[in-house]
Amino acid sequence: MSVSERLLILAEGYSTDPHYAKTMNGVLRYRRQEVVAVVDSERAGEGRDGVPVVATVADALQFAPTAALVGVATQGGRFPPTWRDVLKDCIRAGLTIENGLHQMLGDDAEMTALAAEHGVALHDLRRPPAGLDCPTGANLEVPAQIVLTVGSDCAIGKMTVSLELDRAARARGIASQFVPTGQTGIAIAGWGISVDAVIADFIAGAAERLVVEGAERGGKLLWVEGQGSLIHPAYSGVTLGLVHGSAPHAFVLCHQAGATEIDGYPGATLPPLRELVALHEMISLPHRKAPVLCIAVNTRFLTSDDEARAAIDAIAAETGLLADDPVRFGADRLLDAALAGLPTLDLAPTALGRAPTWG
Amino acid sequence: MSVSERLLILAEGYSTDPHYAKTMNGVLRYRRQEVVAVVDSERAGEGRDGVPVVATVADALQFAPTAALVGVATQGGRFPPTWRDVLKDCIRAGLTIENGLHQMLGDDAEMTALAAEHGVALHDLRRPPAGLDCPTGANLEVPAQIVLTVGSDCAIGKMTVSLELDRAARARGIASQFVPTGQTGIAIAGWGISVDAVIADFIAGAAERLVVEGAERGGKLLWVEGQGSLIHPAYSGVTLGLVHGSAPHAFVLCHQAGATEIDGYPGATLPPLRELVALHEMISLPHRKAPVLCIAVNTRFLTSDDEARAAIDAIAAETGLLADDPVRFGADRLLDAALAGLPTLDLAPTALGRAPTWG
Repeated sequence: MSVSERLLILAEGYSTDPHYAKTMNGVLRYRRQEVVAVVDSERAGEGRDGVPVVATVADALQFAPTAALVGVATQGGRFPPTWRDVLKDCIRAGLTIENGLHQMLGDDAEMTALAAEHGVALHDLRRPPAGLDCPTGANLEVPAQIVLTVGSDCAIGKMTVSLELDRAARARGIASQFVPTGQTGIAIAGWGISVDAVIADFIAGAAERLVVEGAERGGKLLWVEGQGSLIHPAYSGVTLGLVHGSAPHAFVLCHQAGATEIDGYPGATLPPLRELVALHEMISLPHRKAPVLCIAVNTRFLTSDDEARAAIDAIAAETGLLADDPVRFGADRLLDAALAGLPTLDLAPTALGRAPTWG
Repeated sequence: MSVSERLLILAEGYSTDPHYAKTMNGVLRYRRQEVVAVVDSERAGEGRDGVPVVATVADALQFAPTAALVGVATQGGRFPPTWRDVLKDCIRAGLTIENGLHQMLGDDAEMTALAAEHGVALHDLRRPPAGLDCPTGANLEVPAQIVLTVGSDCAIGKMTVSLELDRAARARGIASQFVPTGQTGIAIAGWGISVDAVIADFIAGAAERLVVEGAERGGKLLWVEGQGSLIHPAYSGVTLGLVHGSAPHAFVLCHQAGATEIDGYPGATLPPLRELVALHEMISLPHRKAPVLCIAVNTRFLTSDDEARAAIDAIAAETGLLADDPVRFGADRLLDAALAGLPTLDLAPTALGRAPTWG
């Protein structure tokens, strides 16, 4: 995957859905300069963050796209039937396809035949790479400081927090890298492994490979995108494999203000945040005991800044840690707290650090 | 898979290796009455627990086997090259194959063609079943008491402890079921899912399916075979997915006397056992907070019973929990402690409970 495409985002029927259009929204926020158009026949003529919405792939060709990115995360990870024609139009137009759904285009005989005919590459972002295995210990040798975002639940902004902290660090000239571990992160950054899609025995090995690659890409400070939650009844295995395999020096704990139980799991009450902090510190690798450095609070459901600030202050008081909402109030205070907790980090600016890849 | 086969165990070159012959040893211990012979040309003429060892598959046919079970766990889970001929001899002799290695016979064109020609079934025990997904909450509705073995490391006897407790419970007439979660457990019990081989997102869903099936098989008391350890740098993800997906009412914590770090991971020191007890209780489902009921101590490296008893007593004193080695001293004291911790268990004997499947 290249990170300098002219991207057409496919969001047919979904471009205004905040949940299903998660990948589109992430790419619009963090890879905006590459996006040339969005396809959604139900919203043609509108704009999304200044990007034109068109009805068909044919209408989009005036913007000279080079690749089409599947911008939705559907229920069950399968393509709606009407999408097959949209995808075929893209292939016939010579566009590379970037697909983060569970349903792999590379396993679809009709799509692969058409792609071969038109010389088009099909990138299935969630397909695990070959040769995964258990961690080797290379995660403990990575020449970088590693910070993993963890959380009290799924889908509360761990990827966004990692990206905002990376962006803020780059703005200060730090050789910072975002390390993607899920399909939207991969679609944004152009590399990574969807750790929830690997064989269970190899979660930690996949995470190790990612931090090794993050350092090889020049990162001295790695922000590893977290997944799930240690206390999530469905996804905790992925979370703990990531906690151990990415071998973080420290955590940033993400929490949605006001949440009291795991979304969609009635009765799965959240423990007090100070217990969740203790749990992460207790379960971190004995080789590398990792503290929680600060709390990233998602205040999107609080309408006023005053309410948001009050919620953040209450969390800071409860945990004794600095807390802030990096989307609402900027990432600098969280970054200050994180850097203060990483005293051995080499802060010398580098060419890599000076030039943000996105934003 | 049937549980009333006449089994030929394939252990060519490995029948005296305590590590690689793990599956053979488990099957000899817990499915002994079905085993008719072992193939190992290097040990032909010897006996293993009273079972004749023969040089070739042809030599074994006098014992009228109906199935051949791959009795070894090789490095990397692949067949040594010389084994292909042994497997082909079995298929030509009409034997069903039960294979717990990572390398799937069903994906091997030569083996599947030969099996089709001879009308032979190839069972790959580690192949995940179709249709796995996230847990649905059915794990919390299972009409049984669920006990999961957990441990301070891999390969210290969690499967054996579960099997010994199941056997002791059956001997008391309790409707008890062993719930297999790995290849050797599956080879012993004849059903199950190898949870380390499923897609990472579906570990908990696979575990849920197993406890549902354990109850459907008549178990009112389920002993779920644990995997890995919450503190294992490579396999912890599988462990936590199993902890949440199997929704245990309680844990039995397994520990090898004298161990101070994770085997093969220098520097991965074990925490005090009382901290490990607290960690499991803290991370158990909020719906169903699970206590550790007792400690199963593996004393195989202590030569005298006095030393073993002293090590067990020290662990009991440290944790405040009953401790014992169920292999060395019998499982009854551990079972008493477990039953005392499951006050709502229906102990009424049933036909199922009265007739142990193995031993």
